[in-house]
Order: sequence, then C-alpha cells, then structure tokens
Amino acid sequence: MSKIDTDHIKLDKLASNNALYIIKIGGNVIDNSENLYHFLKDFEALEGNKILVHGGGKVATQMAEDLGIESKMVDGRRITDIETLRVVTMVYGGLINKNIVAQLQRFGNNAIGLTGADGNFIKAVKRPVKTIDYGYVGDIVKESINPQNIGKLLDAGFTPVFCAITHDGDGQLLNTNADTIASALAVSLSALYETTLIYCFEKKGVLKDINDEESLISEIDPERYEQLKEEKIIHSGMLPKLDNAFTAISCGVKAVIIGKSDELGQLKDKKPFGTRLTNNA
Amino acid sequence: MSKIDTDHIKLDKLASNNALYIIKIGGNVIDNSENLYHFLKDFEALEGNKILVHGGGKVATQMAEDLGIESKMVDGRRITDIETLRVVTMVYGGLINKNIVAQLQRFGNNAIGLTGADGNFIKAVKRPVKTIDYGYVGDIVKESINPQNIGKLLDAGFTPVFCAITHDGDGQLLNTNADTIASALAVSLSALYETTLIYCFEKKGVLKDINDEESLISEIDPERYEQLKEEKIIHSGMLPKLDNAFTAISCGVKAVIIGKSDELGQLKDKKPFGTRLTNNA
Repeated sequence: MSKIDTDHIKLDKLASNNALYIIKIGGNVIDNSENLYHFLKDFEALEGNKILVHGGGKVATQMAEDLGIESKMVDGRRITDIETLRVVTMVYGGLINKNIVAQLQRFGNNAIGLTGADGNFIKAVKRPVKTIDYGYVGDIVKESINPQNIGKLLDAGFTPVFCAITHDGDGQLLNTNADTIASALAVSLSALYETTLIYCFEKKGVLKDINDEESLISEIDPERYEQLKEEKIIHSGMLPKLDNAFTAISCGVKAVIIGKSDELGQLKDKKPFGTRLTNNA
Repeated sequence: MSKIDTDHIKLDKLASNNALYIIKIGGNVIDNSENLYHFLKDFEALEGNKILVHGGGKVATQMAEDLGIESKMVDGRRITDIETLRVVTMVYGGLINKNIVAQLQRFGNNAIGLTGADGNFIKAVKRPVKTIDYGYVGDIVKESINPQNIGKLLDAGFTPVFCAITHDGDGQLLNTNADTIASALAVSLSALYETTLIYCFEKKGVLKDINDEESLISEIDPERYEQLKEEKIIHSGMLPKLDNAFTAISCGVKAVIIGKSDELGQLKDKKPFGTRLTNNA
C-alpha cells in the first residue's frame, strides 16, 4: 500500500473518530414503542460518536395524572412544582431513560443513561421569576459543560443518553428543555468534535408547504433563511427552532439537521435526510 | 528527600489509588432525608475509589400504592410484575438515584448514577419459575461484570452509584437485590482493586446480644464465625448476610464490614466501625 493510501486511511479514521452526532428525539418517537424500536435501531447503526437526548413530556403528563397531580402549562411550557419535578425525575431519568438504554444495549450499543447531574455534565440555574414562576425549571449554564469530561465517556466507548434534567450544583435537580440541552451539548462539544446536531420531529424537515411532505427544503444557509423568512414561507412555529439552529452553527456546530425520526436510516446510507442547515449550503 | 521516602510516597499513592470501597445502603438511610444527607457527606469524605449501591423498597412500595398497584411480597421478596417493574425503574433508577447523585455533586463528589443496563455493567437472567414466579426479577450473571469496564469510570474520576436494577442484554430491565449487586461488584472488582465491601444497616454491626448495641463483635474470621454459630450467638436473620460476606471474601474481597450508616465517618477517622469480616481477623 502506498504512503498516500495509508495516509488516506489514517485521515478517514481520524475523521470518523472525530465525527459526533447529537440527536434529539421527542414525544412522537418516545410515546410509540414501535417508532422507538426502529429509531434506536437506526441510531445504533449510525457510525461515529453519538449522543442521544430525549424528553418525554406526554408520559410524564400521564404519570402525573395517574398520581392525581395536575399538570400546569403556560404557553406550552410545563410549570414544574416540587411534585411535578418528582414525576419528571422518575419518568425522564428512570422509566424512559433506562428503557432506552436497555434497548440500545440489546442492539449492541454501549449506552449510558444520564441527567446533567451525573458526572456534573450540565449545570443550570433555576429560572428567575419574572412574570411567571416556572418552578424547578433550569436555564443551562453553558460554560458548565466541559467537553473533555463528556469526551472521556465517548473515548471509553460509551454512548451518553441524556434526559431533560439538569442540576444546580447545590443538590437541586431541574427540569430542562431537551432541545436546549441538545444544542448546548453540540456547541460545547464542537470544541473537540466535528458535531452534527439532529432534531427529530414529526415532519420530513422544513417544508415550503406545511401540508405537503414532498415540499421539503433540503438545505438552508443563513442567506436563504433570510429569503424564506421574507417570503413568509417558513412557518411561525419553526422560527425559534431555526433561529436556535443558526445560533448553534455560528457557535461552531458543523450542521443542524431537522428531519423525521423514521428516516434517520437514510443518513447512514448517505441518502438525503431532512433539512440541512449550514453556514454555507 | 531520600529515595526511600519518595518510594514510600509512591507506594502510598499506589495503595490509595488501588483501594476501593463498595458501600450498600438500604431503606433506613434512603427513607430519611436527614440520614441520607449525613451519610452522603461521610461517603464523600472517604478517601479512595468508591461505589455506592442502593435499593429503595419503601419508596417504591409507597409509589405503587399511590398508583393503585398492589405490592406482592413472598418471604420478604417483592413479586415484580410489569407494572411493579415500571414503578421500580422510576423510583430506583430515577427518583432515588438521581437525587443521590445531585446530593453527592453538591458535596464535590463526581457521582454518576447507573443501572446494570448502563454501560452493560451488570447482566442478569430473569429468575426461572420454580414454585414461585417472581416476575421481572434478575439473578446476576457474575461473569458479565467486567472490572476493566467499570474501572474506566473510576479511572476517569467518576463515582458510580448503582441502583437495584440490571438488564438481560435483550432489552429487558430486571429488579435485582441490592445486597447481591454490591457483593457481585466487589468480587469482580477485586481483580483490579483492594476492595472493601460495606453493608450499612440499622445496627452497629453483628451484636452478641441483639438488644444491646454495646455488645458489638468488632472482628470475625471464618473460625470465629463457626464458633459463633455453634454458640447460637449469631441471630438467624444475620446468617445469610454473613454467609454471603464470607463467600465474597473467599472470592477475593479483602474485607466485608457490616455497620451503622451514621457511623461511616469513623472509617475515615480510622476509628472502629462496625463488624469487620476477614479471612484472618
């Protein structure tokens, strides 16, 4: 084999060791055991370093109801009183997280289930009360995420599976938005890894026409994003998601993909998957 | 500094790096937040590598009751139907485990909360049905515990906190006795570490007179154990605990200590703590 060939192999290996996918899944995957099974199989098959981030809101809402605890929502956000925090800790950190880990192990993936308290990986502050008291909800302290610390787990061959819980470093667990955890991890780990952040949701990606799954926009860069906003093609609910995605990219994340969970397998097969947001599409 | 002095320092460091305490706590610590706080503070202060193992039976029983799920016990053992397994996964793996981790982080200990499914650390088989169907209860597959694998976490500076759940490697979580998890970990990790296994319970240790806390037997070796059994000094409930302890010792564990959780601090201060079981007391 020539030196150029071996150099190529080395570079390929380096690139593959250095690639990191951070994938966030939500209710449409978690609430349906068949969807979850297929998603986790596709997740396992994806090469490179991987981190999974999950919420689990509907299961928590149901569990709270079974326990006679009223779920209070303001603008789609859960008010987390102390009873609700107990439920969230049980459901996210126990029931959902450990079942995902057991499933991934079944597929040969050496998953390890975590909250932000574990390994002191993600610290947050209890959200200050302005007009609304959200209770035990955490706003992530971005500087608290130490990429070397999480890198130790990746280097040892583990796949971290984070649920939507952090801690304040003073013994208090905090309910924390899973989208935000995923993007904060992606930004921090970009210092060490070529990081792609993937948000799985119920649509194929960003659609020109929300009622037409075939109208997928395959790539968006900041310039195109401005155009799409001007043309009012991008749906209002997508704006915060995309704003956050472009912020992550401007902070070092290589790309953000928004796609449908049951199509994740296409990424492994190098086929088009979702809408790819980059700095230079 | 002379070479002998520096050699001494090196050896001391080696010994301290190589020492491992595996400590199991039960209901009397977990069910009382003040006891738990003091125990975790003492645990944190203990030097060397540490692993914590916990159950949480009473909290699970209460949670099952709150959810209208009947707890079925046979000879003090929980029958774990699928509903009970959900409760146990939530309570052990989520509520108790993650709160312990958050408390340890508060004290500066870099804890990481685990089930046996995480990192594929502990596998078990669903207990075969003989006369009683225990349901989703796991009997540990001792060979499945890879000390190098757990050692990676210890070497990276993490303190593993195991709850009483394992998995079968095929996606199924299993409720597993915490005492057995602690001794299986201790035996396996003895291959790499000078391991002391500590069972914390409500008494000061093995007592000559169960009603007299001052009648503590400070050390027992196999010979003395035989005598104590012959003299019927050892209480029948202690026999399985002590039999298991001596089995662990014969499999390489340096010592097993049975003591009171709120006296753990004495170990750090090199003061007498509990009953110490060894091969040569």
